[in-house]
Amino acid sequence: MHRDRFYTLAASCPDRTGIIARVTGFFAEHRGWILESSFHSDEEARRYFMRLEIRADSLPFMLAELRDRFRPVADELQMDWKITDSAVKKRVVILVSKQEHCLYDLLARWQARELDIEIPCVISNHDTFKGFVEWHGIPFHHVPVTAENKPKACAEMLRLIDETRADTIVLARYMQILAPAVCAAYPGQILNIHHSFLPSFVGAKPYHQAYQRGVKLIGATCHYVTEELDQGPIVEQDVIRIDHSDSPDDMVRYGKDIEKTVLARGLRYHLEDRVLAHGNKTVVFR
Amino acid sequence: MHRDRFYTLAASCPDRTGIIARVTGFFAEHRGWILESSFHSDEEARRYFMRLEIRADSLPFMLAELRDRFRPVADELQMDWKITDSAVKKRVVILVSKQEHCLYDLLARWQARELDIEIPCVISNHDTFKGFVEWHGIPFHHVPVTAENKPKACAEMLRLIDETRADTIVLARYMQILAPAVCAAYPGQILNIHHSFLPSFVGAKPYHQAYQRGVKLIGATCHYVTEELDQGPIVEQDVIRIDHSDSPDDMVRYGKDIEKTVLARGLRYHLEDRVLAHGNKTVVFR
Amino acid sequence: MHRDRFYTLAASCPDRTGIIARVTGFFAEHRGWILESSFHSDEEARRYFMRLEIRADSLPFMLAELRDRFRPVADELQMDWKITDSAVKKRVVILVSKQEHCLYDLLARWQARELDIEIPCVISNHDTFKGFVEWHGIPFHHVPVTAENKPKACAEMLRLIDETRADTIVLARYMQILAPAVCAAYPGQILNIHHSFLPSFVGAKPYHQAYQRGVKLIGATCHYVTEELDQGPIVEQDVIRIDHSDSPDDMVRYGKDIEKTVLARGLRYHLEDRVLAHGNKTVVFR
Amino acid sequence: MHRDRFYTLAASCPDRTGIIARVTGFFAEHRGWILESSFHSDEEARRYFMRLEIRADSLPFMLAELRDRFRPVADELQMDWKITDSAVKKRVVILVSKQEHCLYDLLARWQARELDIEIPCVISNHDTFKGFVEWHGIPFHHVPVTAENKPKACAEMLRLIDETRADTIVLARYMQILAPAVCAAYPGQILNIHHSFLPSFVGAKPYHQAYQRGVKLIGATCHYVTEELDQGPIVEQDVIRIDHSDSPDDMVRYGKDIEKTVLARGLRYHLEDRVLAHGNKTVVFR
Repeated sequence: MHRDRFYTLAASCPDRTGIIARVTGFFAEHRGWILESSFHSDEEARRYFMRLEIRADSLPFMLAELRDRFRPVADELQMDWKITDSAVKKRVVILVSKQEHCLYDLLARWQARELDIEIPCVISNHDTFKGFVEWHGIPFHHVPVTAENKPKACAEMLRLIDETRADTIVLARYMQILAPAVCAAYPGQILNIHHSFLPSFVGAKPYHQAYQRGVKLIGATCHYVTEELDQGPIVEQDVIRIDHSDSPDDMVRYGKDIEKTVLARGLRYHLEDRVLAHGNKTVVFR
Repeated sequence: MHRDRFYTLAASCPDRTGIIARVTGFFAEHRGWILESSFHSDEEARRYFMRLEIRADSLPFMLAELRDRFRPVADELQMDWKITDSAVKKRVVILVSKQEHCLYDLLARWQARELDIEIPCVISNHDTFKGFVEWHGIPFHHVPVTAENKPKACAEMLRLIDETRADTIVLARYMQILAPAVCAAYPGQILNIHHSFLPSFVGAKPYHQAYQRGVKLIGATCHYVTEELDQGPIVEQDVIRIDHSDSPDDMVRYGKDIEKTVLARGLRYHLEDRVLAHGNKTVVFR
Repeated sequence: MHRDRFYTLAASCPDRTGIIARVTGFFAEHRGWILESSFHSDEEARRYFMRLEIRADSLPFMLAELRDRFRPVADELQMDWKITDSAVKKRVVILVSKQEHCLYDLLARWQARELDIEIPCVISNHDTFKGFVEWHGIPFHHVPVTAENKPKACAEMLRLIDETRADTIVLARYMQILAPAVCAAYPGQILNIHHSFLPSFVGAKPYHQAYQRGVKLIGATCHYVTEELDQGPIVEQDVIRIDHSDSPDDMVRYGKDIEKTVLARGLRYHLEDRVLAHGNKTVVFR
Repeated sequence: MHRDRFYTLAASCPDRTGIIARVTGFFAEHRGWILESSFHSDEEARRYFMRLEIRADSLPFMLAELRDRFRPVADELQMDWKITDSAVKKRVVILVSKQEHCLYDLLARWQARELDIEIPCVISNHDTFKGFVEWHGIPFHHVPVTAENKPKACAEMLRLIDETRADTIVLARYMQILAPAVCAAYPGQILNIHHSFLPSFVGAKPYHQAYQRGVKLIGATCHYVTEELDQGPIVEQDVIRIDHSDSPDDMVRYGKDIEKTVLARGLRYHLEDRVLAHGNKTVVFR
């Protein structure tokens, strides 16, 4: 990310000739300074993906007018598109249970402004981290989830999230399955970290599954949450080597190190509008 | 591996106190010089695994007598055990189809004596590499496999392998499923390289499966062949990073680099008696 | 690490035959249950290294008596040795400056009891993290270091550390060079994280040096602090891939992720008595 | 790489607004289909880098005319540029000594057409691989190099290389320092594989240097050869984990696996015109 204010265009459209020329021609016409640009053609899907960063002060108009002026270009190319502003901080709600590693990691990055976001609140089904979160000046909501109160808890969570006008929801090792209503309300905006190298070891206790199968590497996967458990589009993955001497408990411990790193990387790509999902896959312009 | 001749003891037994003391005491008594030693206790299986390298010239007797003298110790500990001699080259039969990368890689290592083995023959269902293999002075057998001739081809392969008195059979991207009779004849002696990070993407065209799922890393797995396809004990695995711009063809190309490396590592562990399989898992004393 | 209480023997001695038998024989005699054992012969240095974990309740005597009884064995083998007790928490002083990533990471691991240590205090040349550290119930000492007050600051730090009876001092991105008096007082007990893959890029601003040289991977190194800057024995290292699009600022950001992971791994090896330094190298029994 | 014939534009120019629009506008005007495009702005050097692949059959003229028509655009932007044709195989001369791993690896890739190049000859200071190379139908030249005959040997090598009209020269573990005259004759066209993670361990016996320093990872570096030993622009690097049990001989063996992989990756980037060197650094559009 750059220090100066910039706009980010993230878009996709049916593939044809002249797309880059049309889009960059628009910016050149207004003497827009392109800081970074990435393009990708998905030959199978016949779809074109792009991401551009344009220095805000190089353009002779403000964001609203930029959007108005770009709209005809986008329409002509039948684009799905958005333009975001680096000066507007994204609003990220964090969901957590009783494991600390992802929460500490995210708050450290937020403290250091490495993650330049607002965290309107943290929601948890336990009150373990109430003090820690509140010490950082962030509101903490305890929403217990039991077999009996599920629909009510879900409604409460949805209400809390809606109130924050969140851009993004991060499941930082939140150990409850999210209700379909929540998934549906925030499509492509909910990131989960799953503690296996998907598609291996879907579901519960993946490290124990990995131990039983005798694999030599374990992994973590950051993906968008959809209604189907652990099946959403994958944003980022990584693995770490283990061997026969590692118990499931050792794996849990090693795994934390990749979980938090993979979640942080995936979240950054998402927040910087580097991830363009299509179908069950993602283009990630790193 | 060491330059001087040495014996390797690879063994497992029920866990109890005093195992290391009993075994190393035996060698100490005869002033045996232990070059390398590894021990592992599988707490779940309550089984103890070990591997020792003893310098041959430090012992006052030859291999046959060593085995005779060690037998009572092994019996006392209810051991599964073997002692091998670094001066006796292992005999490795290579099975290959039409892809060259693993074959070239193995022969390069054999030429350089990095793999200090004998290759009594290469067997293939195609004649693609006949000239290349024979140029190296290694017999080449073309055993075509079709839907019709399967049992006959299998019998022929088994006959050829039996004749070589092979210690180990390597499927170096051999694209036929091995007949159960062959698997049964060489349990724990047949190594395969599967072109995915198992247990993901079992079966055919794993890179295409990986492409469809949109994973961010692809892998390769070296495992012992059992009658159940791609389910045998895993010896070694590794992965490589890909991204959205990689087609299945790109993955096939990248994948070759990990396939040959993972196969070579797994094979070396196996040949140096570093792999002790138990149930569907392996202890690998690297 | 195991749940049950255990003793750890970490030792080295001149190489000869019968070492393992002598040591494990001692434990077998008392029916000591060996949980984990590692051995290494350094052929160049003609020195033998070992580490054993023995279940405390399997021995018929307490730690003090164990040490008394083992002493004759150790003397006979001319050992450097120590036996530690998993029930006695190590005391770790953390030194930090203004960067948060290693501090947050260590405290998260401490909170989760993944690092089962006592942190008697955190010392810093800035007061940035006073509130954060004290919120965790850990004393925080602000010891500013300037060109003028160096000797006085050093004396103050040494006094504070001495008071804690620290086993280990961790430089968690502490940006001052430690005074020789401190290094001399805690040999083999001070761990630093250097933000390069040593021996490349010794000294200041290693990421900028890496940027100028155009390397394709950047790294981090956890090492023991000696009086010679960045030259102490290396405990752990790792790297991360970068490319031409990464500025020095990007490298700083990526680097944090390996710095904290490498420091945490190195620290754990050290605390579990897995690291045996000899000369300028280390044996690390992972 | 794509199956259909395409042209590759690789270029750099002083940074300004409108570069992408100008270049892609040129292709759009002629309905050129852009298969792949990469752009990079080096903010420090104020220089802009780009690489485009354009499908040959989408343009209404041939390569010579494309170059003529593009020249005014390039001049206007003060470009360093070239356009290459995927249908014209690059000519790659391989230099080798007595180690087989890179040579076998490159020939395997060439056999499989993964490297779609011509190899007009292999030159070596030993005759070790004469038979192997000639079996592949490739001319082999034995040019011994001794302390006495250096200038003459250099002249002979230069003559042999010149005769082949080589695009690229690969030092596949060629263990002689290349004469300045050869370096000067093929600037930016000679790739070497150095067996360390540069800038660590420049010069002779890097694995022994690594062993003495006690590093925990060893590496390999593919770089352009310049007159200053091991100082040229880096194209690709990678590392592999080792530990205290690995002797220098073990490192040599492990190292081969990364050397050949890193060389093959670097060579492919170079041959596909993905590497743009500037000063002592490279932009690599993977």
